[in-house]
Amino acid sequence: MIKNLKTDVLIIGAGPAGLTAALYVARAGKKALVLEGRTPSRLAIGYEIENYPGFLKIDSRELLEKFIEQAKHHGAEILKEDALALALEGQPKYVTTRSAFIEARAVIIATGRPISEEKIIPGEEEFTGRGVSYCATCDGPLYRGREVLAYGLSEEALDEVLELEQVGCRVKLVTGKKIKPEFKEGLEKLRQKGMVVLEGYELKAIQGEKRVEKVVVEKDGQMEEILVSAVFIFREIPGSTLFTKAGLQLDERQCVVVDRLQRTNVEGVFAAGDVTCGSLQVASAVGEGCVAGMQALAYLRK
Amino acid sequence: MIKNLKTDVLIIGAGPAGLTAALYVARAGKKALVLEGRTPSRLAIGYEIENYPGFLKIDSRELLEKFIEQAKHHGAEILKEDALALALEGQPKYVTTRSAFIEARAVIIATGRPISEEKIIPGEEEFTGRGVSYCATCDGPLYRGREVLAYGLSEEALDEVLELEQVGCRVKLVTGKKIKPEFKEGLEKLRQKGMVVLEGYELKAIQGEKRVEKVVVEKDGQMEEILVSAVFIFREIPGSTLFTKAGLQLDERQCVVVDRLQRTNVEGVFAAGDVTCGSLQVASAVGEGCVAGMQALAYLRK
Repeated sequence: MIKNLKTDVLIIGAGPAGLTAALYVARAGKKALVLEGRTPSRLAIGYEIENYPGFLKIDSRELLEKFIEQAKHHGAEILKEDALALALEGQPKYVTTRSAFIEARAVIIATGRPISEEKIIPGEEEFTGRGVSYCATCDGPLYRGREVLAYGLSEEALDEVLELEQVGCRVKLVTGKKIKPEFKEGLEKLRQKGMVVLEGYELKAIQGEKRVEKVVVEKDGQMEEILVSAVFIFREIPGSTLFTKAGLQLDERQCVVVDRLQRTNVEGVFAAGDVTCGSLQVASAVGEGCVAGMQALAYLRK
Repeated sequence: MIKNLKTDVLIIGAGPAGLTAALYVARAGKKALVLEGRTPSRLAIGYEIENYPGFLKIDSRELLEKFIEQAKHHGAEILKEDALALALEGQPKYVTTRSAFIEARAVIIATGRPISEEKIIPGEEEFTGRGVSYCATCDGPLYRGREVLAYGLSEEALDEVLELEQVGCRVKLVTGKKIKPEFKEGLEKLRQKGMVVLEGYELKAIQGEKRVEKVVVEKDGQMEEILVSAVFIFREIPGSTLFTKAGLQLDERQCVVVDRLQRTNVEGVFAAGDVTCGSLQVASAVGEGCVAGMQALAYLRK
């Protein structure tokens, strides 16, 4: 049986951005319903965070728990289901899940950065938060002076690799098989800085005892082992047909396009956090969630 | 004796935005120098915060202390002086204070929202954080169902007043003496919603024992007392000649104009927090500080 639900603001995604938006909406006395989908917030993995202001060091799961508790404390409700279809244009807006048909006056999208499942590397999930990272800013400083492997080749990946080097990591870059000509120059620049570039290699496996200790890379069918303390994976982001179908404008990286007030191209629909390809930081996700929540409230006032 | 200082990133302002930027810069191994001027962060006043994610309830001074400690822990340094002159175009950038001549590769402006001193209302400073507020979103929910007075007339002020009403406050608005014709319609809308609009009245004093209990308003020389639990002051912001002189683009509200990456119109100069007329929230200031810090680091890599 499908149940009908009504809310002032529907928030899709239960990470730092979505939960902060929910806190702001609920605290203002409006109904805030949060959808927590199958793919959990990256915080649920469990790793140490040193750069969320207010906590010198905190386990990501503990911080996520605090965010959930605080949103609920102010009256936000959480439904543990994925959004399956969106009808966002017009008023009200409709979103369906497995068990519910939801009517909302405003919608905030905070689904985080998608990773397509087929691309996952053996060992990647097991060691996430224990040597596997997706963010140079977050985790680079933890491996200062040590050997790390970076994997991926895009403009963003090259910048992240430079950041690892800036922070003092000893970086080896594995580019993957296909190298687009526009990256040749960037790779040359890394080599000039003394970095090792393994051109045309693929990352095949991440291994270790309790933490990452080594990786297996491959070129032309030849396997090779490299000892490293950490692996940074910088993937390009696959598209999201759900959002495109709903009329939302995405950029070339398949991220939802927003302005400084977190407004999308669809009236009454806002987006916050990693889904907008921001800074992949808890601090900035929280900031964007706050702005999206306040803007949704302003939209309801109209 | 003027001393010469050199830093990678100079951060002007020691509130949530500036300290978060400093944390990010210092944690990446770069030198971060923070100027803490005479006007302290609004957090230094001491009031309860319920909407900074991670803390159900925290005293603003305690939170500020945590931000300072965390930035210092990662190596940021704080100099307790105001920026007196800025030379931001070109490379490096120069900033002078009372005792120092500072050379920086990048600058982040996070000076907060200025209030001109001559405009302060008797009782305003004494009761700030104890009934006097500048932010409907922050403090409105604390006065649900109670009488509050709002003071000020601008587009922003009208929106804040609607927010107070949305949250469940019983609002009286004091408009000040001069009423621009473009606000007539907005005031009519408030009246239709059942709000009391004291047109042409000035706010003369804020009084009480330990907390705000009443205000004195004036029209045509006649004084009147009104019992209220809180006073929300929504001022327009005075201009900042320091920034204009330095070549920074300001908007009509005299706020520094930035893009989504917190970049100003001057290369290598970023701005974050209330100085950009964002959301006046600790959460969004922290988010913007994080982005500004990361962007300054990206700028240094170039």
